[in-house]
Amino acid sequence: MEKTLLKVNRERLLETIKISSSIGSSAHGGLHRLALSEADKNMRDIFVDWLKAEGLAVRIDDFGNIYGRRKGKKDNGPSVAIGSHLDTQPCGGKYDGILGVLTALEVIRVLNENDIETEYPVEIINFTNEEGARFAPPMLGSGGITGNFTKDFIYHIKDDEGISFEQALKDIGYMGDSENRLKNIKNFIELHIEQGPILHEQEKTIGVVQGIQGNDWYTVKVAGKTNHAGPTPMENRQDALVAASKMIVKVNEIANDIKGLKTTVGKMDVTPNVTNVIPGEVVFTIDIRHEDNELRSHAFERLKEQLSAIALISKVELTITTDWNSETTLFAPVVKDAVKEAVTELGYSSMELFSGPGHDAKYMAEVADTGMIFVPSVDGISHNEQELTLDDDIEKGANVLLYVVQKLAGTKK
Amino acid sequence: MEKTLLKVNRERLLETIKISSSIGSSAHGGLHRLALSEADKNMRDIFVDWLKAEGLAVRIDDFGNIYGRRKGKKDNGPSVAIGSHLDTQPCGGKYDGILGVLTALEVIRVLNENDIETEYPVEIINFTNEEGARFAPPMLGSGGITGNFTKDFIYHIKDDEGISFEQALKDIGYMGDSENRLKNIKNFIELHIEQGPILHEQEKTIGVVQGIQGNDWYTVKVAGKTNHAGPTPMENRQDALVAASKMIVKVNEIANDIKGLKTTVGKMDVTPNVTNVIPGEVVFTIDIRHEDNELRSHAFERLKEQLSAIALISKVELTITTDWNSETTLFAPVVKDAVKEAVTELGYSSMELFSGPGHDAKYMAEVADTGMIFVPSVDGISHNEQELTLDDDIEKGANVLLYVVQKLAGTKK
Repeated sequence: MEKTLLKVNRERLLETIKISSSIGSSAHGGLHRLALSEADKNMRDIFVDWLKAEGLAVRIDDFGNIYGRRKGKKDNGPSVAIGSHLDTQPCGGKYDGILGVLTALEVIRVLNENDIETEYPVEIINFTNEEGARFAPPMLGSGGITGNFTKDFIYHIKDDEGISFEQALKDIGYMGDSENRLKNIKNFIELHIEQGPILHEQEKTIGVVQGIQGNDWYTVKVAGKTNHAGPTPMENRQDALVAASKMIVKVNEIANDIKGLKTTVGKMDVTPNVTNVIPGEVVFTIDIRHEDNELRSHAFERLKEQLSAIALISKVELTITTDWNSETTLFAPVVKDAVKEAVTELGYSSMELFSGPGHDAKYMAEVADTGMIFVPSVDGISHNEQELTLDDDIEKGANVLLYVVQKLAGTKK
Repeated sequence: MEKTLLKVNRERLLETIKISSSIGSSAHGGLHRLALSEADKNMRDIFVDWLKAEGLAVRIDDFGNIYGRRKGKKDNGPSVAIGSHLDTQPCGGKYDGILGVLTALEVIRVLNENDIETEYPVEIINFTNEEGARFAPPMLGSGGITGNFTKDFIYHIKDDEGISFEQALKDIGYMGDSENRLKNIKNFIELHIEQGPILHEQEKTIGVVQGIQGNDWYTVKVAGKTNHAGPTPMENRQDALVAASKMIVKVNEIANDIKGLKTTVGKMDVTPNVTNVIPGEVVFTIDIRHEDNELRSHAFERLKEQLSAIALISKVELTITTDWNSETTLFAPVVKDAVKEAVTELGYSSMELFSGPGHDAKYMAEVADTGMIFVPSVDGISHNEQELTLDDDIEKGANVLLYVVQKLAGTKK
């Protein structure tokens, strides 16, 4: 390590982010840059120019992931990969994912202008379709190269207009070669906004991310009986919505019983959904999160009993199906330690926390020692045009990433 | 009155209903015969043929209402009108409305074949768009001729495909003249299925309808804060759906406090409605019914206080708007008495009840002494392909209508 700590160029980094913020900008100060859209293509083109300007070897793989490789002393050795994604939610924010890619670019620029030679190569990555907003599920680029999805599966996913992932990739000219996929890496480090209020509320600058919370998704179907609201006496009803409402209250209340448990009903559809008709069917989702896998599944089992009791009393039928079970990902101590060392050396405030949402780092953790650096989201807002991370926090986050890269890639003494 | 009671021809009536059931039949044994659709046109054409075959003077008004007039002794005197509607809900039943028109036709047939001369003319009516399923609001035909809606309002209502009521009426060839509207009537009598379980459960054949329950509709908007389900701690959430669920439970519970009160949340929309996003907004409707207008509005005031308390605790904003207030309609004693006399003379079981849903009779009650005859709905099911009224009950209901028409129109001694 250098004795004098290297720092990023704040003005240059903010200017780079400003350029990104102008590509696919939405009406209310956010970004609408869906994966493989025209706006995404424009952003990619500029990004590739930036990589080339830094003398990096640029390559595109068969999922459209973009890599820029900076040589290391041991150029056949494993690389240290850094990055995230440049796509956004519909009318999303300017920071989610983007900061991870652009602070990584700033790190490369600082290494270059200081002629720093690292032991291991450093690779910067822009993953395709992290958001999953246009092509569901999310994290297809990182999921593809880590074998979580087959190429065939990914290529045949269609957007709402029936355009396949494969077609969209060709349309914007980012169909690369499977030979170019990332391989032989020792670490992956992703800087990201917290997308939650904890750092902001606790007035901490850096989140030392312990891992990604396990996350289970269920679909609950409540079947009652459709009937006209006028004549049907209250005691004869099998109202699916009243039963579902009682269930949703329970889903919410169970989080009081287990510390750190988060339960959310985000989606709900009522049939036939007519003012004067007693709902015959309600379908809603449950999202359960906790870093402790056992506690999480215990909570769900308990919840199931409570929902069954409500169904019985309400004379409705209950069907629960599992849509997704994702175990907790724990990040590599070597990366967490490097982040902790960085904040100590740099004198920044920090705290340990878990990530609620998934990230490309989740899949990358399966193939390399991986970690994340969180920076604060003002009021915890994300997936929203009002998403905001303050310039000071961006700068400090980038300095931490710069430190960690030097530490893990190994700089010449 | 005749000494020997006239009776309808059961086989002929059931055959007529069977023909109706074949026009616009849906996949699971019901009818899909939306107002002014091709199926509605086909049904109307056959209906007009039937009226002509009975020697009735047929006319169509500017709302597409179809009338068939049978002369009376006092042919300039006011007429006794009978009928209902031939349109249905999407995938609705074969009886709702239809029985009122086809039993009326059977009454005319019986009067004709027995050469019965009435003091007053008898008019049979098929009202346009009672259901309101294609062109909302419901009861446009009866509402139009009674001045509840202007012609301009009705003509400009559009269906989901942007076709106006006026255009649809012309398209099926049922645009008539305003001169033809019903006028100078003394009574209107509508036979209808109960659309509720009371007669079926109480094992009564005929419902002596006291009136139509008052009915208020409200829209409730609950505004919280959209956020990602992963990182947002439970205690920081302003979850619009959890708050709305608690409110819906209250809407349901208040019916326990006031006898005869019916409360329904039939429609609910969640925004953004994504599994892993905390709902930022929920909009739902409240339908409140009770025959006592004061009790009904008292119940709503109390409910408003309860919902406001939930909103406060849940840190969400509550907005309630009134969509519709409809006072209770009380039917004319002269019709109710005639129905009671009929069931006594015919030896049928009966009970008094209120109608929950609205009917064309609601508007007709504003211009004539009006009443309704209910026949049982098996299990109370309606607005559904499983809707069923038993043949025996149809026959008996038709006999009651025949009796009441003779009574009110006055038959020669």
